Amino acid sequence: MTEQTTTVPVGAADIGVTGLAVMGANLARNFARHGYTVALHNRSRARTDQLVAEHGDEGAFVATETLAELVQSLAVPRRVLIMVKAGAPVDAVIDQLVPLLDEGDIVIDAGNSHYEDTRRREAALAEKGLHFVGVGVSGGEEGALHGPAIMPGGPEKSYEALGPMLEKISAQFEGEPCCAWVGTDGAGHYVKMVHNGIEYADMQVIGEAYDLLRRVGGLEPAEQAEVFTAWNQTDLASYLIEITAEVLAQVDAATGRPLVDVIVDEAGQKGTGRWTAISGLDVGSPVAAIAESVFARSLSSQRAVREAARETLAAGVDEEAQRAPQDTDAFVEDVRQALFASKLVAYAQGMDMLAAAAEEYGWSLDLGTIASLWRDGCIIRADLLDVIMQAFGGRDTSRHPAPGTRAPGQPLNLLFAPEFAQAIAEALPAWRRVVGTAVAAGVPVPVFSSALAYYDGLRADRLPAALVQGQRDYFGAHTYLRVDREGSFHTLWSGDRTEVDGEGVPVVMPQPTEGDPTQD
Amino acid sequence: MTEQTTTVPVGAADIGVTGLAVMGANLARNFARHGYTVALHNRSRARTDQLVAEHGDEGAFVATETLAELVQSLAVPRRVLIMVKAGAPVDAVIDQLVPLLDEGDIVIDAGNSHYEDTRRREAALAEKGLHFVGVGVSGGEEGALHGPAIMPGGPEKSYEALGPMLEKISAQFEGEPCCAWVGTDGAGHYVKMVHNGIEYADMQVIGEAYDLLRRVGGLEPAEQAEVFTAWNQTDLASYLIEITAEVLAQVDAATGRPLVDVIVDEAGQKGTGRWTAISGLDVGSPVAAIAESVFARSLSSQRAVREAARETLAAGVDEEAQRAPQDTDAFVEDVRQALFASKLVAYAQGMDMLAAAAEEYGWSLDLGTIASLWRDGCIIRADLLDVIMQAFGGRDTSRHPAPGTRAPGQPLNLLFAPEFAQAIAEALPAWRRVVGTAVAAGVPVPVFSSALAYYDGLRADRLPAALVQGQRDYFGAHTYLRVDREGSFHTLWSGDRTEVDGEGVPVVMPQPTEGDPTQD
Repeated sequence: MTEQTTTVPVGAADIGVTGLAVMGANLARNFARHGYTVALHNRSRARTDQLVAEHGDEGAFVATETLAELVQSLAVPRRVLIMVKAGAPVDAVIDQLVPLLDEGDIVIDAGNSHYEDTRRREAALAEKGLHFVGVGVSGGEEGALHGPAIMPGGPEKSYEALGPMLEKISAQFEGEPCCAWVGTDGAGHYVKMVHNGIEYADMQVIGEAYDLLRRVGGLEPAEQAEVFTAWNQTDLASYLIEITAEVLAQVDAATGRPLVDVIVDEAGQKGTGRWTAISGLDVGSPVAAIAESVFARSLSSQRAVREAARETLAAGVDEEAQRAPQDTDAFVEDVRQALFASKLVAYAQGMDMLAAAAEEYGWSLDLGTIASLWRDGCIIRADLLDVIMQAFGGRDTSRHPAPGTRAPGQPLNLLFAPEFAQAIAEALPAWRRVVGTAVAAGVPVPVFSSALAYYDGLRADRLPAALVQGQRDYFGAHTYLRVDREGSFHTLWSGDRTEVDGEGVPVVMPQPTEGDPTQD
Repeated sequence: MTEQTTTVPVGAADIGVTGLAVMGANLARNFARHGYTVALHNRSRARTDQLVAEHGDEGAFVATETLAELVQSLAVPRRVLIMVKAGAPVDAVIDQLVPLLDEGDIVIDAGNSHYEDTRRREAALAEKGLHFVGVGVSGGEEGALHGPAIMPGGPEKSYEALGPMLEKISAQFEGEPCCAWVGTDGAGHYVKMVHNGIEYADMQVIGEAYDLLRRVGGLEPAEQAEVFTAWNQTDLASYLIEITAEVLAQVDAATGRPLVDVIVDEAGQKGTGRWTAISGLDVGSPVAAIAESVFARSLSSQRAVREAARETLAAGVDEEAQRAPQDTDAFVEDVRQALFASKLVAYAQGMDMLAAAAEEYGWSLDLGTIASLWRDGCIIRADLLDVIMQAFGGRDTSRHPAPGTRAPGQPLNLLFAPEFAQAIAEALPAWRRVVGTAVAAGVPVPVFSSALAYYDGLRADRLPAALVQGQRDYFGAHTYLRVDREGSFHTLWSGDRTEVDGEGVPVVMPQPTEGDPTQD
C-alpha cells in the first residue's frame, strides 16, 4: 500500500462505498446506521461532502477523495462496495481498484449488472486472489436505506467476512434476514434478475386485472382502489397490490382526473425483465408469462404503430361481451382468482428458470432459501413468498444442493406443491371465465392467457409437438422418437413412405453427419 | 499463391464448396447442374470422392484435397462457399482460408450462423480486403438441390460477382429468383433467422389448430388430412399446410395407428427460433407469438415435469366445453380463420422485428423484396407471401431505403395493409370464438391467444401500461410522462403526494443522476 498522504484514518472503516448516487448513498447510510464505519467515495467529491453534511449524524463516515484513499481507510480484509451504473463504469472502477487491493480483499458490485459480466469479473479477480461478489439488491431507494432484500453471489468464503454485515442491513422477516449467500459467481445477480422478471409479470397481471375491472367491470380507479385494498387482505397480499391501491386512489391535482388517466400508457422495458426472458430462452425454460410481460411493455411503447392501429384495425367484438357483468362482485372475485393463478404461474416459471440456470451454470441454488429472501424488503414481497418458501422445504441457508441439481424433496414445479395445486384447482373455473371474457370483449390479457396456456400445456396428455416433429421430419429429415420403441426414426417421405431406423432396416436413411448444418 | 503441385486445374472453377455433408453437397450439385464448374473440398476426402462418384455426371466438378488446392482451382475473384456447422468450425475454416486468398475474393458462409458472428467476420475480413458474405439458405436438403430461397448479406459490391450465380440456383417464383441482396454484413443471416422464427410460429399455429380439431372437434388425423388438403386451396395455401396433410394421413406400419400418435410429443428448440425471440427482445420488438412458439417447444420437452403435472394438476374444465361442437363444419371453418389470423400476426411480428433490427444495426432492409424471397423454395413458402410482398410495395431489388428506415409508403405494420386489415376483421369473430372455446376446454393455444392479445393490444385506446408507470414511479421514482404536458413528472408518494416536474415546482424531485443505477 502507498503511504498515507492525507488525513484519512488508516484501516479504520468497516466498508467502503464508491458511487454515491441515491442507491449507493442510502446503502452507505444503512451501514452507518447499523454501527459500521463507512468510508465514502464518489467520482465528484461534492456528492460525498453533501452526504456527510446531510446525514453525517447518522453514524461514522469517512469521506475520501480518491479510490486509493478509500482503500487505505479500510480494515483488512477490505470490503469495497461499488454502486455505479451497470456495464463499462463497473469495469472502470474495478480496473482502478484492483491494483490497490491485497489478496483476500472483497470487491462487491451491488448494481444491476448482468450475471455474465459478474461471472467474467469473478473469474478475473479470482486469478488475482481477490473475492468478487455480485450482489443483487432490491427494494428501491427506500429499501436501500431501511432494509433491502440482498442476494449475494460470489465465492462462498467471502460470505464469512461480508455476510454478517449484509444481513444486518437487510430487511428482516420475522427475525430472519432477507439475505443469504445464494451461489457462486453470477448467482446473486442472476437471482436478482429473475426477481425482476417476476416483478415485470406481477405488475403486468395487476395491469390486466385493472384493465378488465375498468373496461368490462366498469369500475373507476377510485372504486378499484378499494378493491385492491380489499384484495390486500387476501392471499394476494403484497407490496405491489398495496401500492396499486395507492396509485389508483391518486387524483391528479391539475385536472381532477384519476392520475392513472393522465399518465402516458407507455412502459419501458430495456432492463432486467428483458434479460430474464432472454435467459429463459437461453436455458430452455418456458418463461412465457415473464416474456409476455416484457413484450406488453415494448408493444405499449410503439406509439406511432398504436396510433395507426387505432384508426385501422377492427374491434370485432361481441356487443354482449362488452356489457358490464350483471354481478359485479362475482366478476371482481373472478378477476382476483385469475390474477392469483396467473401470478403463481409467473413465480413457477421464475423458479423453473432458476433450476435450469443452476444446471446450465453449475450453481447450487436452494429455491426455498431464495424464496425466503423475497419475503420482505424487495418489490415483489408478498405473503405468498412465505408459502412458496415452505413449498420448497423452507429456509435453510446451509442447504446447498449439488451444483446443477435441485435440493432433494423440492417439487419439480412450484404448481405441484399441494397447497398451490389446490389453490389453482379452485381458481381454474374463474380463470377460464375471465380469459374467455377478455377474449370476447377485446381486452388484451397476454399474461393471463399465456399463463393459462402454460398450465394447460403442462397437464396435457399429448401436445401437438408430435405433429411439429412429424413436419420437421418431413422437410428436414430431423427424425423423431417413437412412444413405443427406443431410437430415432425417419419416414421416407419422398420415397415409399416406409419408416427407417438407424440400425437394421435396409432402406438407407439420410444420416445427419458431423458438420452437417441443420437449415430449418 | 503457391505454385501448382497437383493435377487440379488452376483457375478453372467458378465456385468452391467446402463442407460436403448433405446441404453442401446438394448446393454444389445445384451449381454444377446450372453449368458452373464447382471445386469440391471436404475435411475427409472420402466424401468428396463419393460425391463425384455418385453425381459426377451432373456437371463439372473439380475434386480437391486441401483448401489450398481448392483456392488455386478457382477463377478470380475467387468464390469459396463454406457449409460447415455454425460456430467455431466456421471460424476454423475462415482462418485457414484467409491466408490463401487475394483482395477482392469472396468468402461465403451459407450455414445457419448467428448474425452477430457474421457481423464480426465481415468486419474482420473487410480489413484484409476480402468480401465476407453471410447467406441465409432455406429449403432443406431438397431445396438446396432443386432451388432454395437465398438471402445474401455482406458488402453490396460482392453481389456483382456472386449474385448472378446464386440467383441461378435459387428457387424461381414466376420467373423471379428467390434471391436478392438484402443488406450489409449480417443482414442475410438475420433475415434467414427471422424466416425461421416465423416458421416456428407457423408450425405451432398449425399444431394448435390440429389439437383443437382433434380434442374439441373430434376429428381423427385421417379426417384432418382431408381438412388440411382442403385448406390448402384457401388463403392458407402453403408448403407447411400441404405437408401437414401428408403427415396426418400417414399410418404407422408397425401399429396401424396414425403416425402422429406414435411420435413422441417433444419438440427441440435450440436453434434459430430461439435466436429470433432473443433478438426480438434485444431490439424491443414485441414478437410474442414467435416467442410463445419457442416456449411451447421447450415446455413440450420437459418430460419429467409434464409427467408429474398430469398426475397433479386439475383440469378444471367445463364439461360442456369439451363436448364436440354441434356443427363440425362451422367449427372447422372457425379454426381455419383463427389459424389464418394468428399466422398473419406472426408474419407481422417478424416484419416488425426486421424493421427494428434495420434501425438497430443500420441495415437497409426492403420488406417487400424480402417477402418476395420467401415466395418459393423455403419452408414458409405460401401464396400469402406474394400478398405480403404486395403489401410492402412489391419486389424492387434496387429499392434500398436509407439505413435504419422503412421504404417510403410501406405500412408501419403488416396488419395495416388494407387487404389484411380486412381479412382480420372478417376472421375476428371466429378467432375470438376459437380462443374462447380452447380456454374453456383446456386446450393450450399459446400462439392463438398471444396473437389475439397482440392484436387487441395494438388497437387499444389505452393500455394498463399507464398503471405500470404509476407503480414504477411509486417504488422507484422512475417518473412518468403526462398525456397533457411535455416533460417528466413524479408524484411525491412518500411525501405530501403533490406532483413535481423538473422545471419549476419548488418541491425538489429525486433527480435521476448520471451513474445512478436503477434497481428495479
